[in-house]
Amino acid sequence: MIELMSEKYNITKYSNGQFLNVEDVIVNEYPLTIFVNDQEFATMVCTPTDFKEMVVGFLASEGVIRFYSDIDTINIDESRGYAYVTLHKAAIPTNQEYYSKRFIGSCCGKSRQFYFHNDAKTARTSTSTTTITAAQSIFLMNEMQDSSVVFQETGGVHNAALCTPDEILAVRTDIGRHNALDKLFGYSILNQVPVRDKIIVFSGRISSEVLLKAAKIGVGIVLSKSAPTDLAIKLAKDLNITAVGFIRGKSFNVYSCPERIID
Amino acid sequence: MIELMSEKYNITKYSNGQFLNVEDVIVNEYPLTIFVNDQEFATMVCTPTDFKEMVVGFLASEGVIRFYSDIDTINIDESRGYAYVTLHKAAIPTNQEYYSKRFIGSCCGKSRQFYFHNDAKTARTSTSTTTITAAQSIFLMNEMQDSSVVFQETGGVHNAALCTPDEILAVRTDIGRHNALDKLFGYSILNQVPVRDKIIVFSGRISSEVLLKAAKIGVGIVLSKSAPTDLAIKLAKDLNITAVGFIRGKSFNVYSCPERIID
Repeated sequence: MIELMSEKYNITKYSNGQFLNVEDVIVNEYPLTIFVNDQEFATMVCTPTDFKEMVVGFLASEGVIRFYSDIDTINIDESRGYAYVTLHKAAIPTNQEYYSKRFIGSCCGKSRQFYFHNDAKTARTSTSTTTITAAQSIFLMNEMQDSSVVFQETGGVHNAALCTPDEILAVRTDIGRHNALDKLFGYSILNQVPVRDKIIVFSGRISSEVLLKAAKIGVGIVLSKSAPTDLAIKLAKDLNITAVGFIRGKSFNVYSCPERIID
Repeated sequence: MIELMSEKYNITKYSNGQFLNVEDVIVNEYPLTIFVNDQEFATMVCTPTDFKEMVVGFLASEGVIRFYSDIDTINIDESRGYAYVTLHKAAIPTNQEYYSKRFIGSCCGKSRQFYFHNDAKTARTSTSTTTITAAQSIFLMNEMQDSSVVFQETGGVHNAALCTPDEILAVRTDIGRHNALDKLFGYSILNQVPVRDKIIVFSGRISSEVLLKAAKIGVGIVLSKSAPTDLAIKLAKDLNITAVGFIRGKSFNVYSCPERIID
């Protein structure tokens, strides 16, 4: 496994009116192309860690698999950046057209709008009864950010953590916000972690894509350090997910389903 | 034109140990699906401004068009989020398979690696002889960031500006870093702005995708407020582009081709 998330570079620094040659730590970016049943399916440009989790989580997120048992074999060629996945015959066919076609759905008489067929199929309305206190929310965000050495060194990655209200179960890091979440999704699938009562803590913005990933993973609460978009809030309300943003210092904002955040 | 980049929401704020109902400004996120010659080509999830520039810039970036004159008609249905583009027969065919296939190239005996065919075809090695001083670099970054009301209100968007060493020509804003650059690309095509002697100033991280977009637009210098990735630095060196990051206060880092940054 390539575990290097960053490497040293000689750069030119301008500071106090002077140009200096210094050494700097730069975050790695790596292209991984996934083949499913011998067909090129997608190229993920990512931080080169946790490849198997990322591929499994991505395929689940795209609706290609539901369980790890849907996969027959998975082989990763790290030197060339290829992942080869074969599915059992019974699994969902991988018709690439289908995944990139826009889809406007109207489920449950609500305003729910998805872009792609696979989102409408795999994003679930949360039935989570988990609650979390304000203090626990702030604690989990601080714990996750403190644990990330790469972020502190390079400033160039997103962190995502799967948590109970009391503790972090797993932290995954990536330059791509969606990849960090796919790695967590893969972690939960590979380790058969029940997700309905869990919480996702995230360093990046809550876009519609991030909110949909959380719905696909199956959690009821998303805690972010950053801002949400209006579409993410609408989706969060439709999918019954609690979206919390701007967790900084001792304050935060609750954008949807505030009943899960208790005093 | 939908010019709204943000709207007001009632949210629950937690601060000083109390939950309060307050009004907050949330950034908009909008799906625009592009049809080219009656075929669904792509869905861009974006900030709903400058649609025509974004579509033109995106199609140029993907190698579908080279000039605005390659487009016969362009119609945007803002209420439903669709853009309909028809090309002249002579233009490049839009075979979607071709655009998503990974491509490993080795041009000019260098290490250059692109992910997709269209990148290898459209990203240009810079021949720019433009230089910029340290003071000008810092000035342009401050000017761009000060001009962005949306960022200051919501914290949720990226800014990109096309500049000369002395002044900003155009600023474009989007929740997606690549969209902000596509809008600038479209601006330069629609207004026939010569780009070789221009500079891109950018609020976000310099990923490989951002660096390739700059190469496609045709500039020789990219100034960023944030970090680069190792792959972006490698591409910058191969494509002879000056990549500058972490422009904050009175300091910054030069990652490639430092000869264009002068004292």
